Amino acid sequence: MADAVSPVRDVTPTAGGVMAPAGFQSAALHSGIKAAADVLDLVVIAADTIASAAALFTTNLVQAAPVIVSRNHLAASEGRARAIIVNSGCANACTGHRGITDAERMTAETAAALGATPDQVLVASTGVIGVNLKMEKVVPAIGTAVAALTPGRGHDVARAIMTTDLFPKEHAVTVHTARGAFTVGGTAKGAGMIEPNMATMLGFLTTDAQVAPAVLQRALKESARDTFNAITVDGDTSTNDCVFLLASGASGISIDEELYPALLDGLLTVSRELAVAIVRGGEGATKLVTVHVRGARTRDDAHRVAKTIANSPLVKTAIHGADPNWGRIVAAAGRAGVMFDVGRTTVHVGGVLVFENGLPHDQNAPLAAEHLKGTDVAIDVDLGGGGTDCTVWTCDLSAEYVRINGEYRT
Amino acid sequence: MADAVSPVRDVTPTAGGVMAPAGFQSAALHSGIKAAADVLDLVVIAADTIASAAALFTTNLVQAAPVIVSRNHLAASEGRARAIIVNSGCANACTGHRGITDAERMTAETAAALGATPDQVLVASTGVIGVNLKMEKVVPAIGTAVAALTPGRGHDVARAIMTTDLFPKEHAVTVHTARGAFTVGGTAKGAGMIEPNMATMLGFLTTDAQVAPAVLQRALKESARDTFNAITVDGDTSTNDCVFLLASGASGISIDEELYPALLDGLLTVSRELAVAIVRGGEGATKLVTVHVRGARTRDDAHRVAKTIANSPLVKTAIHGADPNWGRIVAAAGRAGVMFDVGRTTVHVGGVLVFENGLPHDQNAPLAAEHLKGTDVAIDVDLGGGGTDCTVWTCDLSAEYVRINGEYRT
Repeated sequence: MADAVSPVRDVTPTAGGVMAPAGFQSAALHSGIKAAADVLDLVVIAADTIASAAALFTTNLVQAAPVIVSRNHLAASEGRARAIIVNSGCANACTGHRGITDAERMTAETAAALGATPDQVLVASTGVIGVNLKMEKVVPAIGTAVAALTPGRGHDVARAIMTTDLFPKEHAVTVHTARGAFTVGGTAKGAGMIEPNMATMLGFLTTDAQVAPAVLQRALKESARDTFNAITVDGDTSTNDCVFLLASGASGISIDEELYPALLDGLLTVSRELAVAIVRGGEGATKLVTVHVRGARTRDDAHRVAKTIANSPLVKTAIHGADPNWGRIVAAAGRAGVMFDVGRTTVHVGGVLVFENGLPHDQNAPLAAEHLKGTDVAIDVDLGGGGTDCTVWTCDLSAEYVRINGEYRT
Repeated sequence: MADAVSPVRDVTPTAGGVMAPAGFQSAALHSGIKAAADVLDLVVIAADTIASAAALFTTNLVQAAPVIVSRNHLAASEGRARAIIVNSGCANACTGHRGITDAERMTAETAAALGATPDQVLVASTGVIGVNLKMEKVVPAIGTAVAALTPGRGHDVARAIMTTDLFPKEHAVTVHTARGAFTVGGTAKGAGMIEPNMATMLGFLTTDAQVAPAVLQRALKESARDTFNAITVDGDTSTNDCVFLLASGASGISIDEELYPALLDGLLTVSRELAVAIVRGGEGATKLVTVHVRGARTRDDAHRVAKTIANSPLVKTAIHGADPNWGRIVAAAGRAGVMFDVGRTTVHVGGVLVFENGLPHDQNAPLAAEHLKGTDVAIDVDLGGGGTDCTVWTCDLSAEYVRINGEYRT
């Protein structure tokens, strides 16, 4: 296949987060799910008219009620949605039949207020597991939120979906193409139970491009593979998490095969920004670690090795302690279940060679240790066996992670 | 198959650790590999005459020199060995060709002093990776050790193989059978990089039963499956680790098919004791956690679920904080890659029901939290889908683990 001239002229950051694209409105408020007064805990994201919709859901066998309900609605509506109703503070997971009823009720109330059908509303919840939603607070709040819908308040959405997140996460870009510009925006929340395979967090993406549902789903899946599914904080996979993508079409730019790479570019840029922000804000994280594995025979091999290194407690604690411990990196690679030649493997830490020809370069350790004292750490492993590479982002493992997770609920 | 009358009359603890069985001698001394004066760092375990030998080696792709050399020797000698030479303080891993030469030299020196062939000597090393052995210290020490061989000093062996271990680990039992008694003894070291699949630690087992090499290997593999390969501290798998088993035959009790269960009983008892001690002494561990999964369709299913729970940082930190967080336990089970019905799954913490029918029993949480304040914690998960079960032992994840591993080398 000959290289086509890229339809993408430029991808530039823009303000507004998830509300940057045209054709959407939102409202965020305090419903009372969270005890603390005035803390935002309920959000409605609504398209002005029916939008194309795509979603990726947790791969955990144990799935929260909103995940089950949203998956059903997306199938019933054949990839169309009018709105997403989201709450923080309660995950509505492990809540049995009542959980399903409550999640359905949230979509029905939102739909009624908007003049849509329940199938056209998606729902997401995040927070404590095993606790029922306070529906007497939620139901009136939904009506209030829909009545308050307004454009341009993406930052409130980003704040309202936070649980133990340290900071809101949002990003938006304008994609300039030969046929005009469209916008992609998004927000996400993370913190704990972060691990690849879409089970990782809540993410809400919007675009004003005009996209058929099947194309939208393909683009979301493709962009998530190298962004949301390439991050890990602790290897744990949540019961609730999902990424939603709505396309309003309000820009008038229609995504066909020629413009598909432009859509993908926009989604990749926004998703990567959000994914990396989730890792940077990981529980107890003090460093963002970029693990880049190259020289692999297949992408799956590269991904396995990168992920095993990124999830190794010994590697993560060594990085926390600014120890360029190539031995732990090589040992983690060696147990990833991938065949490679250790004698041809090299390891760089912050661009400094620390392992080659099966032997350490300990004379470089002080320089590598200096790099590890920073907040952005690069681990590069070349397996020396092929032309495929993969990047995974993780964070260090700190005593603070233990403190947060040993004291979260009690 | 009809039940046979068990040939095992009784399995009783006995003193002496790895030197409890007849037909073995040992010597442990300070060679100078470890800097601190008078700290034991070199051991010879010798059989009085040539013994049957079996071994399990790390599954890590990256294998230390002593692992490569011992595997070759065991193959060349067709499962026979006269001695094992062990050092602590230096792992002789990632040391290239020189590492292999050094490990070969250790066996050759030991063999020469004993009047055996190098193939009849096995070698193991534990300690820092990527550093060469100080052979000028090791070689003379081997001669001194062989000259000092003596029976009954198992405790010195247990101490000499320690690295960051908090306490020595040893156990021995006498197995009384219808045809007489034999003894099984052992010692092990663990601490970090502890994870199933024989990649976990150094273990040395002895017996004075008379066993053909193939039977010995089968018994070691079978007993390790439910003991050494059923523990995890941090999910990391070392480059060095192995378990050796020597059978001297000095008891005169010959292991045939009828007595095989007796041998297995003895090995299981000693290995379980050592494996659990490794977990109890895991880096930063304050609690021993026994994860028992039942109601699985296959043993592999049960093992996957138990291991995923046992390695979950969120579960381990919750236990550390005495939080009966059934949500994290169920979520970990759900991402194990095993199909089961969450609605039929129950979770008990310390015998207290905390999850059933897809719902929590939060009224029991205070009672379960009380149990978690102890040092021995039981997590029982019934998947409700079959008759197979599996036990995995792990420890909690503490801030001390992070401290130890963030500061180990620097």
